[in-house]
Amino acid sequence: MGRYELEYPRDDINSVKRHGEQGNYALQKIHSLINSSQLINVSFNVPDQPYPVTLPMIGQMGSFDKPSADLGHPLDLYIHGYVSSRLFRLGRQESDAVAGGAGGGGLAVCCSVAHVDGLVLALSSFHHSYNYRSAVLFGHATLVEDEAEKLYAMELITNSVVPGRWDNTRLPPTKAEIQSTSILRVKIRSGSAKIRDGGVSDEKFDLENQDLLDSIWTGVVPIHKTMGEPIPTPYNRVELPAYAKEFFDDFKKTNEEYSLEAAAKEKDK
Amino acid sequence: MGRYELEYPRDDINSVKRHGEQGNYALQKIHSLINSSQLINVSFNVPDQPYPVTLPMIGQMGSFDKPSADLGHPLDLYIHGYVSSRLFRLGRQESDAVAGGAGGGGLAVCCSVAHVDGLVLALSSFHHSYNYRSAVLFGHATLVEDEAEKLYAMELITNSVVPGRWDNTRLPPTKAEIQSTSILRVKIRSGSAKIRDGGVSDEKFDLENQDLLDSIWTGVVPIHKTMGEPIPTPYNRVELPAYAKEFFDDFKKTNEEYSLEAAAKEKDK
Repeated sequence: MGRYELEYPRDDINSVKRHGEQGNYALQKIHSLINSSQLINVSFNVPDQPYPVTLPMIGQMGSFDKPSADLGHPLDLYIHGYVSSRLFRLGRQESDAVAGGAGGGGLAVCCSVAHVDGLVLALSSFHHSYNYRSAVLFGHATLVEDEAEKLYAMELITNSVVPGRWDNTRLPPTKAEIQSTSILRVKIRSGSAKIRDGGVSDEKFDLENQDLLDSIWTGVVPIHKTMGEPIPTPYNRVELPAYAKEFFDDFKKTNEEYSLEAAAKEKDK
Repeated sequence: MGRYELEYPRDDINSVKRHGEQGNYALQKIHSLINSSQLINVSFNVPDQPYPVTLPMIGQMGSFDKPSADLGHPLDLYIHGYVSSRLFRLGRQESDAVAGGAGGGGLAVCCSVAHVDGLVLALSSFHHSYNYRSAVLFGHATLVEDEAEKLYAMELITNSVVPGRWDNTRLPPTKAEIQSTSILRVKIRSGSAKIRDGGVSDEKFDLENQDLLDSIWTGVVPIHKTMGEPIPTPYNRVELPAYAKEFFDDFKKTNEEYSLEAAAKEKDK
């Protein structure tokens, strides 16, 4: 990573207002949270509607120009979807506007993720909380038109489902598959993460109340995502390969360990 | 539930465009998905910013006027937050505008949730997917000012963390706690759910390719949220109570069972 950790500059858009001490602006942290989320909530505005629209989509951070760039570097967010969907129609319109010189620079999107890591159960309802890690990226989305970049993004996104999976699928994708797959590239404008970990905070006056201490269970209940036994298709003929088994084991272990680590962390008030 | 299942009417805002067959408009289904999500992604627009902002918040469906109403009935979404946060400042401004007769009807919000239930691994990268359940609600948020309604919502939301928890905390909340807790009530305008379940879909030409069948593992890997062993605070003196233990066991069992059920479902193409 070099001598320092790159951060997104704080401004009106990305600053964590409430519990600012839980805010984190490091690219490495934010990009890791995005990449470890199976779904990303993509929000954007639709003309003539007061409500933003939020769709869960699959995406991954990457750099077509510098594929070896690590997560601490400036990256784009590649999102997978279909041309016929609202998001991509809008992205296409705005891309066309850009191509036509009308300005705009793509569809303004907010891409967010949140992991729940534990229930925090206090004496007062007021101090109940979750341990969680959330991240948000703001940027402008345009449709990827270049076929080489599209294939780069398709590989990136397939490998986000199971690392190494791309090379273990039928290759290459057909022309029709490439054509009917749409990829958006989000140029990131800013971002931030917000993380709550540690144990329970309770008020001094509650902690001195013997009746409460004698009657209310307090603590943290770790929560994590896990995987069940893989269920092969009726036409599967192959043993579960090592790259998949290793990932499934790692997914279970890493998530469980993090939830325990978060629960055990010293709470700085 | 009566003779039929109530549905949100389909319009431009809530209609599921891509894979319309996966769309679901039943209040019961949508409200259940919202209530079984520990965090809800709340999106709204901020003046003079092109990007919507999405924040993860805790919320629950309910009806202050008819607390016994079940999930299949028209309900409001109560969201927990702080007055000092951006969302609630906006909500307050817009509520003030409403109170002042300036119209508006509250802050336009999009509230969404998504559960991942499995990895779907096909022969082609194109047919990779997730089993998932997502739901979205569109509506207008205003600050809850009435103290009785606020307490109703605080109880509802605390019980969403662990059912029955409210009665097992220090009661009543202090004046200061009530004052520094903000609750938004979202009047729902429309909503929808989108659900993908079942096994793998592959192309006929891939299924006839013996080399692929001999080399690529295909199937569904169930994913679910689970809980670890509860970790008591250093000042806890109480055995884990039955209401909590039952919920934790049910959480693990229900989530695991759903992921298996989703994986086993017949895929209608």
